[in-house]
Amino acid sequence: MTDMIQPVILCGGAGTRLWPESRGHRAKQFLPLTGAQSLFQQTVQRAPADTGFAPPIILCGDAHVAAVRDQMGVCEASLLVEPMPRNTAAAIALAVARADADTLLLIMPSDHVIADVAAFHTAIARGARLARQDWIVTFGITPDAPETGFGYIANGASLGEDGFAVDRFIEKPPLADAQAMLAAGGYSWNAGIFLFRAGRMRDAMLTHCRAIFEAADRAVAAGMVDGDALYADPVHFATAPSDSIDYAVMEKDDRVAVVPAAMGWSDLGSWQAVHTLAPKDAADNAITGDAFLHDSHGNLVRTGGKRVSLVGMDHVAVIVDGDDILVMPLARSQDVRAAAKARE
Amino acid sequence: MTDMIQPVILCGGAGTRLWPESRGHRAKQFLPLTGAQSLFQQTVQRAPADTGFAPPIILCGDAHVAAVRDQMGVCEASLLVEPMPRNTAAAIALAVARADADTLLLIMPSDHVIADVAAFHTAIARGARLARQDWIVTFGITPDAPETGFGYIANGASLGEDGFAVDRFIEKPPLADAQAMLAAGGYSWNAGIFLFRAGRMRDAMLTHCRAIFEAADRAVAAGMVDGDALYADPVHFATAPSDSIDYAVMEKDDRVAVVPAAMGWSDLGSWQAVHTLAPKDAADNAITGDAFLHDSHGNLVRTGGKRVSLVGMDHVAVIVDGDDILVMPLARSQDVRAAAKARE
Repeated sequence: MTDMIQPVILCGGAGTRLWPESRGHRAKQFLPLTGAQSLFQQTVQRAPADTGFAPPIILCGDAHVAAVRDQMGVCEASLLVEPMPRNTAAAIALAVARADADTLLLIMPSDHVIADVAAFHTAIARGARLARQDWIVTFGITPDAPETGFGYIANGASLGEDGFAVDRFIEKPPLADAQAMLAAGGYSWNAGIFLFRAGRMRDAMLTHCRAIFEAADRAVAAGMVDGDALYADPVHFATAPSDSIDYAVMEKDDRVAVVPAAMGWSDLGSWQAVHTLAPKDAADNAITGDAFLHDSHGNLVRTGGKRVSLVGMDHVAVIVDGDDILVMPLARSQDVRAAAKARE
Repeated sequence: MTDMIQPVILCGGAGTRLWPESRGHRAKQFLPLTGAQSLFQQTVQRAPADTGFAPPIILCGDAHVAAVRDQMGVCEASLLVEPMPRNTAAAIALAVARADADTLLLIMPSDHVIADVAAFHTAIARGARLARQDWIVTFGITPDAPETGFGYIANGASLGEDGFAVDRFIEKPPLADAQAMLAAGGYSWNAGIFLFRAGRMRDAMLTHCRAIFEAADRAVAAGMVDGDALYADPVHFATAPSDSIDYAVMEKDDRVAVVPAAMGWSDLGSWQAVHTLAPKDAADNAITGDAFLHDSHGNLVRTGGKRVSLVGMDHVAVIVDGDDILVMPLARSQDVRAAAKARE
């Protein structure tokens, strides 16, 4: 058993919830949304070597290899390249197939914010104790609002001070259910951060989703090594069924634990969330770039290298990216897909 | 006495009320604001040769000669170039100094809209009859709202069916005064359109503002002719006091007439006015360029060659010009100066 924890950073997604900045060729995780560094860079730095983490494995698609290398700079890392997207179960299976059985793998999405890194590390330490007892660990975000956009986790039996057995996973709930869970307590948001012994996940996959694991295992064995990168074999990987790790493993396994964590987590799933987390001026405006605001309050302005002037505007997002200019009330952030769909 | 009327088009101004499209190097009158043609082009075509007008004289500054020639195309015209801005009295004096005494000069700003050209021509015919009787004629716009941004003209004695002697000019009024004038009737807006015999205006200027006329007269005499253009001499013209024709002549002369005209006039003095006059879609949006609007109503969008997307926005202006992007409620259009001042 190793003491090191092996971070595995999932860089596969693209997504249009932060259109126009996030789109096909340039995914959300590579954008500097809450400061000078991208979410991906923040994720890498959240698990640094001097606190007991191995150099990270970056799981990404072909299209993002250049962005990953560019943003990693001189940091040590290895790349695991998916030849095509096959959802999170197959992606994680690639990392599992390459790892020693006793390595603890910490799976982290690359496009989330965690403001309280100390609380994150405390949660990791708790999770590691459970993972070494062959629990598959998920980290549960303590809810502070009846969010309907996240899945929920219901606590089961206590596992001492480190966490709880998972009673069940709950799909994105209606508002009334979300309010009831928030009031009752004992529920947390499923943030998609996982910790487990590689051998334990291998066994779970062979039990719950054998076709996915075997396709990934063959894709690694037949993969092409290029320096620090392994390019999974496309013929084998293409045969992997596309499924999320939640559906394929978590909801089926009977030894899954949740470690509750209040660590300032956000998935930055909308421009409104970006406004909430970004630094703001005295008039509650979050501004990136050359913006002039007159009698304007509570806005999110990202100028994309242009010059944006607001007069008498409140609570809107003005997002400029290349030739695209998006204007909408922050409260309508969920509807950005309408524009993204029309434009992409 | 000639039967032809000589149009004189004032192209001197710049103005920032339609910033960012209107600014130093590219003035409002050269913009296509209400259709494919610029306001300047519409002004030229409002007084065509086949309805009794001579080819126009274009009064403009050095900086706008290229724009004038570009937009005139192959139309016949002559240019009178002001070496520096000296306000409307000196500009008009240049045209007066060059004209035969019995020529009727029709002075027209180049940046207004007149929707009903037939009504305009009817008013011109009435004004011409008065001008030949040595009235200095101004055209009064019949008010349809208590506007506080225009000067008003009070009718005096009737001059038959053609118009009225001017009782007095009234500066931009407070709202209560504007409402009272609208209710009382017998008042009109001063639109800055004038018609007079050149010799009559020469005499009036020699009486009321001799220094202005003499400076302009010398600037014409010492001017440089270049093809169809006369460049007024800068040394002489610089000595002309800067004053408006209203202050310098109209308010002082005792034989000024007003011809009321209901001709769909607008000075397009704000982005809100542009929205009012522009063609609109079923959701009351006025769009120029590549715009995508979702659940958005009553907006003015001018994309300036970029791609603008609005989601859930109502009654705002989004104006893109080069690298400048302006966003403001249409109702705040008067405040655009704050942005223009900060940016220019």
